[in-house]
Amino acid sequence: MTTVGVLGATGAVGQRFVQLLEGHDQFDLSVVTASPSSAGEAYHDAANWGLDTPIPGETADLTVRATDPDEIPDDTDLLFSALPSDVGADVEPELCEAGFVVSSNASNERRADDVPLVIPEVNADHLGLVDVQRDRRGWDGALVKNPNCSTITMVPTLAALDEFGLERIHVSTLQAVSGAGYSGVTSMEILDNVVPHIGGEERKMETESRKLLGEFTGAEVEYHDAVVSASCNRVPTLDGHLENVFAETRDEPTPEDVAAALEDAPTLDLPSAPDPLVEVFDDPERPQPRLDRMLGGGMAIAAGGIQTTDTGFQYNCLAHNTIRGAAGASILNGELLASDGWL
Amino acid sequence: MTTVGVLGATGAVGQRFVQLLEGHDQFDLSVVTASPSSAGEAYHDAANWGLDTPIPGETADLTVRATDPDEIPDDTDLLFSALPSDVGADVEPELCEAGFVVSSNASNERRADDVPLVIPEVNADHLGLVDVQRDRRGWDGALVKNPNCSTITMVPTLAALDEFGLERIHVSTLQAVSGAGYSGVTSMEILDNVVPHIGGEERKMETESRKLLGEFTGAEVEYHDAVVSASCNRVPTLDGHLENVFAETRDEPTPEDVAAALEDAPTLDLPSAPDPLVEVFDDPERPQPRLDRMLGGGMAIAAGGIQTTDTGFQYNCLAHNTIRGAAGASILNGELLASDGWL
Amino acid sequence: MTTVGVLGATGAVGQRFVQLLEGHDQFDLSVVTASPSSAGEAYHDAANWGLDTPIPGETADLTVRATDPDEIPDDTDLLFSALPSDVGADVEPELCEAGFVVSSNASNERRADDVPLVIPEVNADHLGLVDVQRDRRGWDGALVKNPNCSTITMVPTLAALDEFGLERIHVSTLQAVSGAGYSGVTSMEILDNVVPHIGGEERKMETESRKLLGEFTGAEVEYHDAVVSASCNRVPTLDGHLENVFAETRDEPTPEDVAAALEDAPTLDLPSAPDPLVEVFDDPERPQPRLDRMLGGGMAIAAGGIQTTDTGFQYNCLAHNTIRGAAGASILNGELLASDGWL
Amino acid sequence: MTTVGVLGATGAVGQRFVQLLEGHDQFDLSVVTASPSSAGEAYHDAANWGLDTPIPGETADLTVRATDPDEIPDDTDLLFSALPSDVGADVEPELCEAGFVVSSNASNERRADDVPLVIPEVNADHLGLVDVQRDRRGWDGALVKNPNCSTITMVPTLAALDEFGLERIHVSTLQAVSGAGYSGVTSMEILDNVVPHIGGEERKMETESRKLLGEFTGAEVEYHDAVVSASCNRVPTLDGHLENVFAETRDEPTPEDVAAALEDAPTLDLPSAPDPLVEVFDDPERPQPRLDRMLGGGMAIAAGGIQTTDTGFQYNCLAHNTIRGAAGASILNGELLASDGWL
Repeated sequence: MTTVGVLGATGAVGQRFVQLLEGHDQFDLSVVTASPSSAGEAYHDAANWGLDTPIPGETADLTVRATDPDEIPDDTDLLFSALPSDVGADVEPELCEAGFVVSSNASNERRADDVPLVIPEVNADHLGLVDVQRDRRGWDGALVKNPNCSTITMVPTLAALDEFGLERIHVSTLQAVSGAGYSGVTSMEILDNVVPHIGGEERKMETESRKLLGEFTGAEVEYHDAVVSASCNRVPTLDGHLENVFAETRDEPTPEDVAAALEDAPTLDLPSAPDPLVEVFDDPERPQPRLDRMLGGGMAIAAGGIQTTDTGFQYNCLAHNTIRGAAGASILNGELLASDGWL
Repeated sequence: MTTVGVLGATGAVGQRFVQLLEGHDQFDLSVVTASPSSAGEAYHDAANWGLDTPIPGETADLTVRATDPDEIPDDTDLLFSALPSDVGADVEPELCEAGFVVSSNASNERRADDVPLVIPEVNADHLGLVDVQRDRRGWDGALVKNPNCSTITMVPTLAALDEFGLERIHVSTLQAVSGAGYSGVTSMEILDNVVPHIGGEERKMETESRKLLGEFTGAEVEYHDAVVSASCNRVPTLDGHLENVFAETRDEPTPEDVAAALEDAPTLDLPSAPDPLVEVFDDPERPQPRLDRMLGGGMAIAAGGIQTTDTGFQYNCLAHNTIRGAAGASILNGELLASDGWL
Repeated sequence: MTTVGVLGATGAVGQRFVQLLEGHDQFDLSVVTASPSSAGEAYHDAANWGLDTPIPGETADLTVRATDPDEIPDDTDLLFSALPSDVGADVEPELCEAGFVVSSNASNERRADDVPLVIPEVNADHLGLVDVQRDRRGWDGALVKNPNCSTITMVPTLAALDEFGLERIHVSTLQAVSGAGYSGVTSMEILDNVVPHIGGEERKMETESRKLLGEFTGAEVEYHDAVVSASCNRVPTLDGHLENVFAETRDEPTPEDVAAALEDAPTLDLPSAPDPLVEVFDDPERPQPRLDRMLGGGMAIAAGGIQTTDTGFQYNCLAHNTIRGAAGASILNGELLASDGWL
Repeated sequence: MTTVGVLGATGAVGQRFVQLLEGHDQFDLSVVTASPSSAGEAYHDAANWGLDTPIPGETADLTVRATDPDEIPDDTDLLFSALPSDVGADVEPELCEAGFVVSSNASNERRADDVPLVIPEVNADHLGLVDVQRDRRGWDGALVKNPNCSTITMVPTLAALDEFGLERIHVSTLQAVSGAGYSGVTSMEILDNVVPHIGGEERKMETESRKLLGEFTGAEVEYHDAVVSASCNRVPTLDGHLENVFAETRDEPTPEDVAAALEDAPTLDLPSAPDPLVEVFDDPERPQPRLDRMLGGGMAIAAGGIQTTDTGFQYNCLAHNTIRGAAGASILNGELLASDGWL
């Protein structure tokens, strides 16, 4: 078994890591960290557990440690980071310098030239950037990132459709409140309402998508030259980001071609990798967040509503934002790191 | 005063007509109709009133009539239609043949060559089609339509922006449940959920928009040649359709140019016409359905989130779907008909 | 294996039966019925499946039969009824006359003198009424009922507390929309709203509770003489009925006594019976519908908020209304019937 | 005109004060205060305005002052307090000592022997405690409180029903999120959920109700000896507290008697006092928060669902929690203070 830890384990995303790691085939969760004020408490006391399954028994009694390289046992093979990005920006480099491999969901450094931003089914080869990173930064450890939850919902579909030559993408998102963290969206803001803005999210989608779809040359990632424009909205759903995608491509695929390409999206032989990666619905009313967010254990992408437009085609896609879009994404990256011999 | 009636007055849209006509400067509501099963009842008994203001006193005691030309007094100057489209398709032509002028919210015949589809601030001159209609159909009356609620939210902004040369429009809608009528969306469907499909809505937006923005030659309407692609979603809000618009235009306006054009959208001197027509927000989190749907008494369009994209610009717009998008739209068309001497 | 069928299998409660019977240890689902208009279709076509797990593979391809004694194979050992009460009132007696044993969730005949109304952990001995029923009605089969969803949430706690001598109960319910069926509550009714009335529900709670807590003499059930007053509300939750109970008892138990009595509620050795039956929370903010409705696979009762009042004590209880409160209740009754040799 | 100020004017309740005071017949709002960090800013900049009507023009440009006796002009006749209770506990006595009359919505000192807790239609004579207060504390000013929002919803109905001899009251509340302030309830807590606990609320209802219904002897208030037990719940509504009341009385009134007593509740000739005070619905599905919270401009109490129980009777009541239950309550107390010559 690989010994793993979760950094920032008491927050909303941290709790998802703990939930998803329960009974994992390869990973044994033995370290949980939080801010110094919680250090020394039992995990079940420190976490205000808010998921609808019980706290895993093996984790409940772990003692919370401060998020500090000196507090992490040296024999921890892999650290998952659920840290806020400002904390991650401070601590993650220190941990990598100290020799730890960090699979991080935090948004800091996602665009850095020598930090791999990875969705295993899309661009596993970008992990090669770790050699560049180690060389440049003098680290024994490594820092690997997964993208933002709204990006991760769309990019596996775009990767599958790039065979038609992606040129322009317009995307509108309908994002669940859990994406903002436990206290991120107040009830007064969102009951009977929509907020048509999520700070920084649109730029993240536009940039991260092109990095993920880019080509790794051995020395750097050349961004894909498709143009992506995003409009992001917060809606009154708990979990599951739904996205309306308008695509313009070099070729003119039929809706059947689009469906076939999505259904043929590659799958991987990793514990958390869903099969199929993309489930395509004929019913134009699907996918829907409440009904379809748990497909593939929350790791699959659901798609539907495929139609031709005057300038290309359109479709909808959906993923669980705190599983495939956050904790599950980092765990899958960790599984890829283990499988490819980086630990 | 102009004597008016409401066809289909007991349904959700019909109730809005009754509410909005209370105390109207020019219109005196004296006729309410419903299906034959309600005929003879007092309006307050026949309507299962569901609005959060009381039933207007002067309407509460009106006797409901069957929706039948023989039941409408000849001296009724103007009829507003809140009928379902299948009923409207049967009854509206009979009423026009019998000499009544009908301002209708029902979707039947919106695309007919000789039926004016009108938003007064956008294409008041299309009313000239009534002459064509009377000539062709041999009617003494007239049939005038307002567009669908999702179309009406966007088109006043597009009309204001056409000075930049509209070429391609991509729009995603986040539509309130009231747009589907009182029983249209069940709670099981929409709590903690989004339904990414509204039957027929996308095609209505694409076609009606181009007719509204088209040019009336005196004999027909030449559709605007912009390309419109729509993706329509139902979200858990009560009232207010919010729309994300991506525009590509011949010119390359700055966000300031876009805001100025929207703020300069023309206003009319009619009782229900808002001033300004479009209210532009600087705050990127606005407009929001709950906060902004009642701007201008529910008749104004709210806009915000204006940004440049790689291929044009994007913005959000919002309107109250059962006021500006339905009953209020028909009333405003009625005011235009009165003002222009068609009654 | 016991061969079972589900009557009314395509509706909301019927789908829960199908979901819960997937992989059941003892029951093999081989018959699904619906209205004659669906007869002959495959189940996956006839059911507009609305649960967030896939249709069980073994059921998806079953051919739907009409709900008619002539259509049910004679060797079906047990029928579960998810029929509307008016249909149940017609068909259930015919089925029992034809020799079938029916475990029914429908509300018809729940108060009949010779029909056992059963929660296995509370009054399993009431099954003895089947002998009375067969004798009186001349049936080879049998009709057994589970109570209404709001009753079933409270009565296991009352049964555990009757050791203190129940005298007066006041209960307010906060009930989820799924209790009214898929189309029972419209979104316009319940978004940003509460409906403080559920037709007939209050009387059901008051009467069914006293029957369930009553004593079976061998010939009849003598109702418990506690006084129950209920006030029932529909709130915007999907699943899970929460209830505020005020109890007045002969004795004056402390909150600790109350908690201990609830925790000591008896459990049964049946496949669907939860252990513990009642989970008691110290945190006064629990139980909550979204977090706690799936305790014990949706079959447990959650309780909390225990406090002394001037005239007794108060507490909250919660159960999943379509599992413990409907389909799961009937299945558990079926398990009891099998275990006690009634099949 | 009476010159008034609002303490804590930028928060959620403070904004309601500002909204309700727009165009008031007697009160001229000329002072708005907030925490020192906002002092010096224009009100429209300092307040993150969240109501669905625009900021009143006359208030938008007022300069915000610190909540400090030295900053309030001496000629301010009346101060409304929307302060948090901990700030109120510090500042309100200082203001009263400095000679200001304070009509406060803050919960501090509501139970103090010499502080009148007032609902004008219920216990206007309790204002006589101001003489006791001035005498005991040596103040020139005065401190008058309105009760908690959940108390204020029920007590006007109890006062009307006390002619039957109130003995025991059990009440369950279904309270809107706005009662907890703008950030009080997160969306993760309340979407698809109910929280069956509001800290301290149950005790407030039990104690404040008995003080309000008590008798003023000239020297003190003798609490009513009815027993009140409350169970408080937070539900996903924006505004409007709905309450289920079970009453046991000395007499045995019929439902018609109860309705008549409620309809006869006294009204006052003050600008914000509704007439009738209590609106009684026959339809058992009413009152509902979304439909009925704005009755009487948000100042009326709605009641319905009147039924006899085995031990008395039950009914539902509803009021707008931030109008009748907070800002409007303080304004009405201010109107009473002005009318009775206390300013």
